[in-house]
Amino acid sequence: MSGTDFGTEPDAGTVYLVGSGPGDPELLTCKARRLLEQADFVLHDKLPGPKIIDLLPDDRRKDVGKRAHGDRTPQSEINELLVQHARDGQSVVRLKGGDSFVFGRGGEEAEYLAAHGIPFEVVPAVTSAVAAPAVAGIPVTHRDHASSVSFVTGHEDPTKPESTVNWAALADTGGTIVVLMGVTRLPDYTDALLEAGMPAETPVALVERATWPNQQVATGTLETIVDARDSVGIEPPAITVIGDVAGTRESVVEFLANE
Amino acid sequence: MSGTDFGTEPDAGTVYLVGSGPGDPELLTCKARRLLEQADFVLHDKLPGPKIIDLLPDDRRKDVGKRAHGDRTPQSEINELLVQHARDGQSVVRLKGGDSFVFGRGGEEAEYLAAHGIPFEVVPAVTSAVAAPAVAGIPVTHRDHASSVSFVTGHEDPTKPESTVNWAALADTGGTIVVLMGVTRLPDYTDALLEAGMPAETPVALVERATWPNQQVATGTLETIVDARDSVGIEPPAITVIGDVAGTRESVVEFLANE
Repeated sequence: MSGTDFGTEPDAGTVYLVGSGPGDPELLTCKARRLLEQADFVLHDKLPGPKIIDLLPDDRRKDVGKRAHGDRTPQSEINELLVQHARDGQSVVRLKGGDSFVFGRGGEEAEYLAAHGIPFEVVPAVTSAVAAPAVAGIPVTHRDHASSVSFVTGHEDPTKPESTVNWAALADTGGTIVVLMGVTRLPDYTDALLEAGMPAETPVALVERATWPNQQVATGTLETIVDARDSVGIEPPAITVIGDVAGTRESVVEFLANE
Repeated sequence: MSGTDFGTEPDAGTVYLVGSGPGDPELLTCKARRLLEQADFVLHDKLPGPKIIDLLPDDRRKDVGKRAHGDRTPQSEINELLVQHARDGQSVVRLKGGDSFVFGRGGEEAEYLAAHGIPFEVVPAVTSAVAAPAVAGIPVTHRDHASSVSFVTGHEDPTKPESTVNWAALADTGGTIVVLMGVTRLPDYTDALLEAGMPAETPVALVERATWPNQQVATGTLETIVDARDSVGIEPPAITVIGDVAGTRESVVEFLANE
């Protein structure tokens, strides 16, 4: 981000940092739905999912999640686009999957906008870190099982020294661990948790594309979940839930009307 | 919960375990809004807040958060009411503040319903643990500051042996800590975190009644936040955010249109 203070931009439009929730259009907040209808322009990526993106008129949206050669648009370019549209006086929605402020880089966008004098509003959303377990019958906290829950990203290699995630400390909390973007590196961090002393029989669940028509769930333990992932065929995007709460699914799933 | 399996109840209505979000009625999900309009009966407590509770017709709702002598309704009684209304064939909404599955006892309700053969659906919501920091300009994760975030309740006394919260492990994660229901015991757990070696200058923010008309924010450090709480007059319900991310508010608040 630029540290330069450009002062207030008197004619600038407002940028709304909006999360879409997990993917079911009915899990948009009423405010997100209204802002998407009213916006002059929407910048989104793929994660909100087809059912939500299809609600947006083609001439008022830009997919900044992909580019010509399959690369991702750099964050610096997205930041600059937000500023440009707002300086044109437009009401701009920046739409992210889940919640913008939970591993969504909304914080960086907010800082950039503020540094460039653009007014912005944060519109909190249903985070997939809570919703994906929930719709699979798993509460991330439970009085009998977990008095804390930690959210962490799974895209770092835990064996590399630059990894900033302290898996041993997360295991020591005794609470639930929810891993976002953690399908590919599942073997790495389940190993790290086993090495940290977490019991091998700790229940684990994977929820792929929660609330999408093709939602899939796989369950197992710290020791068996990699095989379960492969036999069910779980692919990104998916959420991993680690902890005794993951075992509650079994006792409720027969009457769970979400599935 | 009862472990007895009563089998399926063929004529039972469905119970919807619905979170209201932090309090702004526009932060209800579209699905929550629809279910509240369609429900035969709504069981709620106080935390959804007056703006949302006032949307509900008086003859189709019951406040199970209070009783004649100021006591809380026991959870067992709420569970039983949910089953009774569903057995009468009603479509029932159990409405909680925030998200039902984040320190909301939704897991216990789900288990009780399943054990009594009542179909239920979980409707995830905007959790105050993410939303309260967000509307105050604080992202709970940030690439420069926090690669994990942990949610924990603050109503336990950390000096008592029966406390199940491992504050030292939470400090060791190096990530953001968000404390729900943590106004009263703020001195206890800030002390516990300092003793665990967390730096005294770690930024801390308190957000009271996020998205309500009378929202209040207080900021400080692990060492100064108790004084800041008292001088601003922060009262429950409030969320505590501990970690470097709490310091980002200062750089964005001038352009934050939420306030």
